[in-house]
Amino acid sequence: MISQETIEGFLDRLASGQPTPGGGAAAALQAAQGAALLSKAASFTTGPRFAEHEAAARRLAAKARDLIPQALALADDDEQAFDRVATAYRLPKDSEAERTARSGAVQDALREAVRPPKKLIMLTKTLLGLGEELAGFANPDLRSDLAAGLEAIRAAAAGARAILAADRKDITDSGIADTLQVPASNAADIAEACARLSEQLRMQIRAAHR
Amino acid sequence: MISQETIEGFLDRLASGQPTPGGGAAAALQAAQGAALLSKAASFTTGPRFAEHEAAARRLAAKARDLIPQALALADDDEQAFDRVATAYRLPKDSEAERTARSGAVQDALREAVRPPKKLIMLTKTLLGLGEELAGFANPDLRSDLAAGLEAIRAAAAGARAILAADRKDITDSGIADTLQVPASNAADIAEACARLSEQLRMQIRAAHR
Repeated sequence: MISQETIEGFLDRLASGQPTPGGGAAAALQAAQGAALLSKAASFTTGPRFAEHEAAARRLAAKARDLIPQALALADDDEQAFDRVATAYRLPKDSEAERTARSGAVQDALREAVRPPKKLIMLTKTLLGLGEELAGFANPDLRSDLAAGLEAIRAAAAGARAILAADRKDITDSGIADTLQVPASNAADIAEACARLSEQLRMQIRAAHR
Repeated sequence: MISQETIEGFLDRLASGQPTPGGGAAAALQAAQGAALLSKAASFTTGPRFAEHEAAARRLAAKARDLIPQALALADDDEQAFDRVATAYRLPKDSEAERTARSGAVQDALREAVRPPKKLIMLTKTLLGLGEELAGFANPDLRSDLAAGLEAIRAAAAGARAILAADRKDITDSGIADTLQVPASNAADIAEACARLSEQLRMQIRAAHR
């Protein structure tokens, strides 16, 4: 499990000449970092200055925290699903029968491999929603952490979108390929909204200049 | 050291109600992930199809790999430097003398705290350069990983920019505050260039549609 690896160990594997973990697992890890930063920003929105929002902040902190293991599970899922794709591509293709079997195995594996990035895009949408709510009342001292969190969530959505584009290219069943259009378009919207909110937070930081 | 923590352990601390690690350390970790993904994309650019570029790919893979520990060291530096800021803010401020001492300690700590994000922005510039070179000839099968890597590098640059904006707001010496303008503007350019190159890679993936 990626969650139990050391950061150095995971990055070694990410950098390696092995097919997995790849961009999909890294994107999921970025979503986990974004969730953690939202949780931190919410956790610091306590005390008399934020009495009015304390209950909401506590709820958002707990929600964001719960999404960390979900994101990490998607990193594992992505690694396993893409392992199957890589294994299928390594099947022999010398005879016509082998080529048919290989092609079937690749298509089966690809159909499964699109699931983790699709789920990741849904997760980034949830995270963006939490970020938007939190940005309305978060402790101003945590705005930069919140912005950094949104940039991480943006990277997760945009990364998942690139992975889906690559999977789509290789999926021969156009019906299945077409089911990837909505998630891809959602990912684009989420990435844009994250960047916009991060920019807005940066502007609020600048406006608070002493 | 962050590199030796488990991913779960680091994310727990990132999500916690402790001031550090915060957005700056997370941004540095994103740069490390970006470096790892560039290294992977370069590592897969080998064999007869890429004979012409094999030497360049090997050089880029090694360079990107070397930047992983540098990025992780910046995550540690950021955590330590921001610990000092948080400690200074907790100094007593009951008397005029205490307020003066506290304010001096905060300013000293902030002056140091801007260094890791400034260095991180320079690191993302180097990574973007490697990504641009690699995008010219990388194995097309790795384009989505390369794009995901650029999105991670973009998040690192944009995150560091938000952190610098927050530090700048609190720095009273306008001479020092002004030295942050160039890194901030660089970070904006780097983030934009990363997003552009990632988008270009996604378009190339789409154009290769079977």
